[in-house]
Amino acid sequence: MTETNVKPFNLDFDLVTGLSKSTKSTKRHLSKMKGMYADDAAFAAAVQSGDPLVYEFYELDLPETSGNLLFGTSIVYPGKVGNEYYMTKGHFHTILETGEVYYCLSGEGAMLLENPEGDWDLQRFIPGQAVYVPPRYAHRSINLGTEPLVTFFTFRADAGHDYGTIETKGYRKLVIEKDGKPEIIDNPKWK
Amino acid sequence: MTETNVKPFNLDFDLVTGLSKSTKSTKRHLSKMKGMYADDAAFAAAVQSGDPLVYEFYELDLPETSGNLLFGTSIVYPGKVGNEYYMTKGHFHTILETGEVYYCLSGEGAMLLENPEGDWDLQRFIPGQAVYVPPRYAHRSINLGTEPLVTFFTFRADAGHDYGTIETKGYRKLVIEKDGKPEIIDNPKWK
Ligand SMILES: [Mn+2]
Ligand SMILES: [Mn+2]
Repeated sequence: MTETNVKPFNLDFDLVTGLSKSTKSTKRHLSKMKGMYADDAAFAAAVQSGDPLVYEFYELDLPETSGNLLFGTSIVYPGKVGNEYYMTKGHFHTILETGEVYYCLSGEGAMLLENPEGDWDLQRFIPGQAVYVPPRYAHRSINLGTEPLVTFFTFRADAGHDYGTIETKGYRKLVIEKDGKPEIIDNPKWK
Repeated sequence: MTETNVKPFNLDFDLVTGLSKSTKSTKRHLSKMKGMYADDAAFAAAVQSGDPLVYEFYELDLPETSGNLLFGTSIVYPGKVGNEYYMTKGHFHTILETGEVYYCLSGEGAMLLENPEGDWDLQRFIPGQAVYVPPRYAHRSINLGTEPLVTFFTFRADAGHDYGTIETKGYRKLVIEKDGKPEIIDNPKWK
């Protein structure tokens, strides 16, 4: 959208499924996440046997100015690659000093956060829990449950997405299932 | 908060009531809205007979920078002053060029919007409906139903609140009940 005067508008996002009837989502199948999961053999096998939909989210088309906000839902489906839970790619904002708000509508999971200084954190998502992603923090949603993890997010329209840093370096930490419970481990692939 | 490096954190907001167990709300009783409803006699009578709670909302204490976001819920209770539905004061942002996102969690109502150029709009709130408040638009939530109207909002932390313009001039439009249905009329008190 190039027009600079935005008019009021509305959009529906189902409070349970996160899906919208009025706009189309962007879908991420597992094959688009090559190298991001620790277990390469399990990854290859899962891609081969159907390339599952791992997550989807909504992207609005508003002028990318600092006064506008983009919003929508993110839906991470339940599942694992080896013992690692389904998750989003995760990203920094191109304008690193911009934060983001996530509000969990349904499902169970966590937000994995880390900044370039090496501080990291894991914040829990349960329905009704808001998580604040401060400026400078990369953020990735992880489904730790058996239902879709649905969050509603809002961020500055000019923030931009830097996926490349995570694609190249990876996250410092991973969340895997051990003895039936989530556990945080060092990422063996982290550079 | 004066510290400039914000750490990740979470806050709970009940998906039905909007209330938080971990932080305190700001409450607006009717007496704080003198002159904002059309029917002064009905207003005075309602204040005299108990000064009802009209709405409450959450205000976060984060550094007021353009990279941070403030968020929380707004809860407008059902009721009327004369034939005019319970509503929030409404405000412009001090930094007029900043927008806001509202996502309706429960209840029924509307967002009344107007900009200094005189454009106005009424956007409906039903559960699962997101409403975008573009830069330059004053915004007021109105409860048109019989249950609390609960919305989750996010806006730039430096945006600021200009309540004075609405307190002095009023809105161009009002929403009243006529024949059991909401109707938009010109505000007789608008200056
Ligand atoms: Mn983001
Ligand atoms: Mn506002």
